[in-house]
Amino acid sequence: MAQQEVLNGGAAEKAVVFTAVKPQLVVEAPKAGDAIEFYKSAFGAEELGRTLHPKRKADQELPLVLSAQLALAGTTVLVSDCTDDSAAPVKTAGTGCVLCLETEDVEAAVAKAVAAGAVAEGELAEGDGACCGGRVGKVKDPYGFTWLICSPAKKCAEAE
Amino acid sequence: MAQQEVLNGGAAEKAVVFTAVKPQLVVEAPKAGDAIEFYKSAFGAEELGRTLHPKRKADQELPLVLSAQLALAGTTVLVSDCTDDSAAPVKTAGTGCVLCLETEDVEAAVAKAVAAGAVAEGELAEGDGACCGGRVGKVKDPYGFTWLICSPAKKCAEAE
Repeated sequence: MAQQEVLNGGAAEKAVVFTAVKPQLVVEAPKAGDAIEFYKSAFGAEELGRTLHPKRKADQELPLVLSAQLALAGTTVLVSDCTDDSAAPVKTAGTGCVLCLETEDVEAAVAKAVAAGAVAEGELAEGDGACCGGRVGKVKDPYGFTWLICSPAKKCAEAE
Repeated sequence: MAQQEVLNGGAAEKAVVFTAVKPQLVVEAPKAGDAIEFYKSAFGAEELGRTLHPKRKADQELPLVLSAQLALAGTTVLVSDCTDDSAAPVKTAGTGCVLCLETEDVEAAVAKAVAAGAVAEGELAEGDGACCGGRVGKVKDPYGFTWLICSPAKKCAEAE
């Protein structure tokens, strides 16, 4: 066991604790606002907060939504506009459902996922990001799903 | 308000309580088994249970996974093989991430979602389904996401 830990590298063996999984629904921009209203109406979701695109917030009447937090059935579901704008710390890779995994140790979690066979996409980033704010990494798993691995969302409420 | 309730129909106005949201990752068959091992290894997920395809379970060495329940960060994430086989009560529409919403009142929940603009796909079904067992309906929302609306998963453990 000790030998295996050495072979696999210390970072990959570090225990990683995840505190939340949040589905992030990335919709065609600028429809996130409409989508949020739909999820309220269709499923009784409650909006907990919304982070707007920093640049577009100043320039436009209809700012893009980097991330809105909706409470639904005891879980948080995130809704975002798809954006390839470089102002967003983590670019969305197109519309679709992404899973956000929250942890205090983003580096170790990304390393462990990559050691298991996931592919890291881009560098770790800081910012009031597509997901929850704080540190954010992105990996694609061997089955085609994208996971955002990020700091816990307590920073969300402060980001706006 | 009373008039509006009549116009919208009673079912659509009925209060619907959702008890859980579970992301369901539908992978290319028969890779669900491998994917489950990957999520254990990469993210420390724990398998709570697994429902196999009823027909293939008898016929094949490698039965397809209708739904495996993984505990991850306090949430349940479901992993399923994509199947268009008619033995599955709710066909998967291809690989991708689907969101399962659990409620005791599947009919009212589907009606409310449709009233809000979602499109029902297929009829309500019973069975040890792609999701959690019990009653299952499927809707596609205006933003391209598929939601399974189904009975609470307490029936999962009994289904296998």
